[in-house]
Amino acid sequence: MAAPTVEEVGAAMYGRDITAHWLGIALDEVRLGYARMHMEVKKEMANGHGICHGGLIFTLADTTFAYACNSHNQVALATSCMIDFVSPGQIGDVLAAEAQEQHLRGRFGVYDIRVTNQKGELIALFRGKSAQLKDQVVPT
Amino acid sequence: MAAPTVEEVGAAMYGRDITAHWLGIALDEVRLGYARMHMEVKKEMANGHGICHGGLIFTLADTTFAYACNSHNQVALATSCMIDFVSPGQIGDVLAAEAQEQHLRGRFGVYDIRVTNQKGELIALFRGKSAQLKDQVVPT
Amino acid sequence: MAAPTVEEVGAAMYGRDITAHWLGIALDEVRLGYARMHMEVKKEMANGHGICHGGLIFTLADTTFAYACNSHNQVALATSCMIDFVSPGQIGDVLAAEAQEQHLRGRFGVYDIRVTNQKGELIALFRGKSAQLKDQVVPT
Amino acid sequence: MAAPTVEEVGAAMYGRDITAHWLGIALDEVRLGYARMHMEVKKEMANGHGICHGGLIFTLADTTFAYACNSHNQVALATSCMIDFVSPGQIGDVLAAEAQEQHLRGRFGVYDIRVTNQKGELIALFRGKSAQLKDQVVPT
Repeated sequence: MAAPTVEEVGAAMYGRDITAHWLGIALDEVRLGYARMHMEVKKEMANGHGICHGGLIFTLADTTFAYACNSHNQVALATSCMIDFVSPGQIGDVLAAEAQEQHLRGRFGVYDIRVTNQKGELIALFRGKSAQLKDQVVPT
Repeated sequence: MAAPTVEEVGAAMYGRDITAHWLGIALDEVRLGYARMHMEVKKEMANGHGICHGGLIFTLADTTFAYACNSHNQVALATSCMIDFVSPGQIGDVLAAEAQEQHLRGRFGVYDIRVTNQKGELIALFRGKSAQLKDQVVPT
Repeated sequence: MAAPTVEEVGAAMYGRDITAHWLGIALDEVRLGYARMHMEVKKEMANGHGICHGGLIFTLADTTFAYACNSHNQVALATSCMIDFVSPGQIGDVLAAEAQEQHLRGRFGVYDIRVTNQKGELIALFRGKSAQLKDQVVPT
Repeated sequence: MAAPTVEEVGAAMYGRDITAHWLGIALDEVRLGYARMHMEVKKEMANGHGICHGGLIFTLADTTFAYACNSHNQVALATSCMIDFVSPGQIGDVLAAEAQEQHLRGRFGVYDIRVTNQKGELIALFRGKSAQLKDQVVPT
């Protein structure tokens, strides 16, 4: 079988990504080592202080990270992530996340993800580390 | 007005914590600088690899962190968090998170959160940094 | 007194930076929110495995971070740093670090630092958070 | 050859740890998954603000981490570290670092290190991740 294109790899992952659909995370673009997704902050995403729960900002960033680090068609899992919350997300905001590979050596990668709102303001900076497994996302 | 007890502070936060109720995160215990919560991994929490989405493990840990760092009745927000994923969570697992204050100086705190499954196996290690604001959780 | 140029701020810091001189860390360039420095890995910088001690790679990155986050002529201290070691440094290598401001809001900043060797290979990725104090580096 | 004791593993590492001797880092104790070391902050360890350079606090913590994660007599390298600086170190302070294994699964480990001064005040919290290689520290 021919190797799948990176768009096919992204589409295959997205087809079975239950959480992404449940939370309304849309896949905008995927390239080798890169992905962009967005999500509207719904009212059920408010924490006890009335702003977007940091866990859901993280989930958007982490999901985008997954599409970037799996774009090589090798199953990769997050091993460690860190996030800096620089500005709160408000209910009704549309948050976009952009993931860019910084380094990939052997099976270990480092990815930076920026989360911004609809005005282009920075909401969070995320750095994720990934480890590839032996499986392929789309078997060839 | 008398200062609220730590249980009253936790109950006040939980009453308006829409995300926690939406995701089924239950509050088990809150003490000064400490909180414990748990969550069942539902089938909509699966990522594209069929295991619990790391973002939801993070959200459980981050929520527990919030109750621990707000337990002093001073509104505190997460500024930065990091998580190490050491073992995957499976659909149907019941994950527990336990947050313990490591340091609080002025308005800045550091908290460690351990996430384990129903067998007591370690799922993730989380460290969060918080900054207190001027508001109180329960005004006195 | 006129506000100092960013080069004067960097030169003032470097003049009193005892550790930088002791370790042979040279200041190549400083601009607003940016700095570049380099250091030769001397034989006393070997750890128990015979490669450059990670603490000294960190120190080079952390020093470069300091020049970038103090470039606004406001004294800033590191509050939290993380480093990923992607390739070992060898004795005799000349390591360069380049720091770039990612975000500065109020008195809190986030900076990314890349450490490379003389062949341009990536050695480490560092992310640092800073907090400005009330003092100026060069009083005006 | 009989398996070495954990003290013999620590002594073998320390014997060839050039940086530790150069910086005056002393090894107090090593047990399985645990190590304690200390270092006096000398005047050449001052940064441009006159306090102990964060890179050297990191180096003390990172060194102690190395003895803890190599205590199983399997060569282990740091892959990723993060440090929170909670209080400055002063010239003349004696800083102690204590490393404790939090998790070891397969060849990957997570270790927490606390750095305190001679008054028992917390100076820094460090978390390090390690990966074991195939070599032994003391061949058996």
